[in-house]
Amino acid sequence: MRSNFKGPHRLSRNRPEWQRISGGVAAARGFLASGVAAEIKKQGLDLAVVFSSRPSVACGVFTTNLVKAAPVLLSKKHLSRARGRIRAVLLNSGCANACTGRRGMAGAVRSARCLASHLGIDPYQVVVASTGVIGIALPIQKLLKGIPAAVAALSPDGWEAAARAIMTTDTREKTCAVEGRIGDRPVRIGGMAKGAGMIHPQMATMLSVITTDAAIPRPVLESVFRRVVERTFNCLTVDGDTSTNDMVLLIANGASDAKVEGAGSAYFEQGLEIVCEEMAKMVARDGEGATKFVEVLVDGASSVDQGRRVAKAIAHSPLVKTALYGQELNWGRIVAAAGCSGVRFNPDRVVLRLCGIPVFRNGMAVSSTQRRAEEALAAHDLQIHLDLAQGRASARIWTCDLSHGYIDINGSYIT
Amino acid sequence: MRSNFKGPHRLSRNRPEWQRISGGVAAARGFLASGVAAEIKKQGLDLAVVFSSRPSVACGVFTTNLVKAAPVLLSKKHLSRARGRIRAVLLNSGCANACTGRRGMAGAVRSARCLASHLGIDPYQVVVASTGVIGIALPIQKLLKGIPAAVAALSPDGWEAAARAIMTTDTREKTCAVEGRIGDRPVRIGGMAKGAGMIHPQMATMLSVITTDAAIPRPVLESVFRRVVERTFNCLTVDGDTSTNDMVLLIANGASDAKVEGAGSAYFEQGLEIVCEEMAKMVARDGEGATKFVEVLVDGASSVDQGRRVAKAIAHSPLVKTALYGQELNWGRIVAAAGCSGVRFNPDRVVLRLCGIPVFRNGMAVSSTQRRAEEALAAHDLQIHLDLAQGRASARIWTCDLSHGYIDINGSYIT
Repeated sequence: MRSNFKGPHRLSRNRPEWQRISGGVAAARGFLASGVAAEIKKQGLDLAVVFSSRPSVACGVFTTNLVKAAPVLLSKKHLSRARGRIRAVLLNSGCANACTGRRGMAGAVRSARCLASHLGIDPYQVVVASTGVIGIALPIQKLLKGIPAAVAALSPDGWEAAARAIMTTDTREKTCAVEGRIGDRPVRIGGMAKGAGMIHPQMATMLSVITTDAAIPRPVLESVFRRVVERTFNCLTVDGDTSTNDMVLLIANGASDAKVEGAGSAYFEQGLEIVCEEMAKMVARDGEGATKFVEVLVDGASSVDQGRRVAKAIAHSPLVKTALYGQELNWGRIVAAAGCSGVRFNPDRVVLRLCGIPVFRNGMAVSSTQRRAEEALAAHDLQIHLDLAQGRASARIWTCDLSHGYIDINGSYIT
Repeated sequence: MRSNFKGPHRLSRNRPEWQRISGGVAAARGFLASGVAAEIKKQGLDLAVVFSSRPSVACGVFTTNLVKAAPVLLSKKHLSRARGRIRAVLLNSGCANACTGRRGMAGAVRSARCLASHLGIDPYQVVVASTGVIGIALPIQKLLKGIPAAVAALSPDGWEAAARAIMTTDTREKTCAVEGRIGDRPVRIGGMAKGAGMIHPQMATMLSVITTDAAIPRPVLESVFRRVVERTFNCLTVDGDTSTNDMVLLIANGASDAKVEGAGSAYFEQGLEIVCEEMAKMVARDGEGATKFVEVLVDGASSVDQGRRVAKAIAHSPLVKTALYGQELNWGRIVAAAGCSGVRFNPDRVVLRLCGIPVFRNGMAVSSTQRRAEEALAAHDLQIHLDLAQGRASARIWTCDLSHGYIDINGSYIT
């Protein structure tokens, strides 16, 4: 599973390219979305609904944290009971409903039932997702009161409000949608995501809902989805903390009548990868307090897994991240972080490039380039590229710097 | 190897207690120390020597980082060649001499030779240690020029200057010494350490030199030393970054004529643990930008290793550390960090106490204590105590919070 660093947009010549369109999570036919203010947060939108007006299939990946929030536990159960035939997603910000015991679970159940009855579907066809502070009780009355308004507001234009309603420390909403063609039929894939903090790739990160009007059998949907999540959302880290509430959900309702099968599934996978990669990068770019977007690319690894371990060690190092924030060419910290990743390599053979400029080679500084590399650090988008000179595998991780802003946000998150 | 949370000071009744004394790394008889300014740093002391005026045995633990600085590589070689009969340590701050290629190694070799010739000992009997920025060339001429002055300044009173000379971002020197009795003879153990950043327990952390005038066979010295380092320095983390230069060295010269053997070795081990624990805590307390000293104690684990993994996951979480800095009772982050440590436990059975106050139990908040726990977070010394309710093993990690100060220091470390 070598990553494709040419970008996922290069398709075979016989196939139409995927085009960006607007519409986010409601770009695909037959999907409606809404975002309303239910007073769960002190101010602003905080309750979102995504609804497929037609029968659908869905699959999800969930946090691997042992401590799972009530909505995660409930949604996994519903996906399984409904055999993937999910029709609606209810999302709230302002409260994670995690570490809230039986009352938290009861609240999640009640909110799913309430939405189902307003939509005329089975409660098992509802996925619920919450994000916000851990350990505080779900304001269930406010949530239940908000549901009729959210259902009434459902429309193809509600996608921006929905994306705003799931934001916590995010500074901007994160949506992406594309349109392609399968056979002679247009197909759309779109989504929304929230991120910012407590972001680390462990099979699932943050909240994201992705919708498509492709007609795709559930087993194909699942395998495509897992591969794409692995290459996109799981290449993402902000602070190495894994949330109790992470969830990425993909719903396909077949409204385009375009059947994904055979070679079409590779084409569909490319479209899905564009959407997921774009949103994953948006999350890194909007990491809590981030002033830099950083791609860590490790080449020459003996396996993708080894490359990832090195890339993650670099992306998680507070010392690397603060140096990037300070725009300091302290590349020794990058080499040191790689050296304690647990992956064996020969430090004398590795080459480290910053924004394309070699700064470390033959076990020491490339002295002629230091000034130029220092200047390159002023850019917003940075690339750390380490060639381990060991094998042929590559891996990449998207992250951000560690700034005063992160401390500000997380030192006073509750108050 | 269950940790002793009653503290290491409780000795059996038949034995005299270890008493604190002054003198740091030169408290033990026959040891001299000095710290001078060799202009390796822009200002202040930056070159230290520790010397045993008598034949000695020594052992060391070194960084497990794959990328090892020249002085680490050279010192490991010298310890092996001299079969532990180390007589002197040369330490500099201001330059780590890491990622400096062949010239870096040549510089380390020359400096060891220079010190050896001034002291009239074999070059292999010299251990060298450097700390500071990675990747810049060692200012070897300045270092060589400083050595005669450092040798001339050697005295039993030079311990404070030596401890200051190895500081980088440390705000205060770190020394500790104790005196006990073996048989009818007084025995002393003392040391100095530097720490602050790039601190993570992986078999060795930071720079530390410990000396004793006990007469102790090298195999006993080694086994005692490894056990104590495991229980003290390896229970320490500031930022999870492992340095290229870490080293802890213990030198014993037998000047007290007190022989450590049989039951005496357990007594010696206790004294050594007092010194090492004290210095490890000093390092956490003086972590870069630290405003809080934090002990993470995990009880009820199924093994010490499992307990440690949980304790480290908590101690490494930027979200936990920033919440402590902000004095916010965001205990959900602690439970979430434990949940992604990879260790299995039942979240509904664990109990989390902050500074002794239960805040999470039965899978949810202990609502009656939240106000009191919030107030307790104002203290400088904090304890996070998580009972996993799984087994009987315990582990503890010492760390600090993550503050604006850390970002200030590490965003502008070079300039």
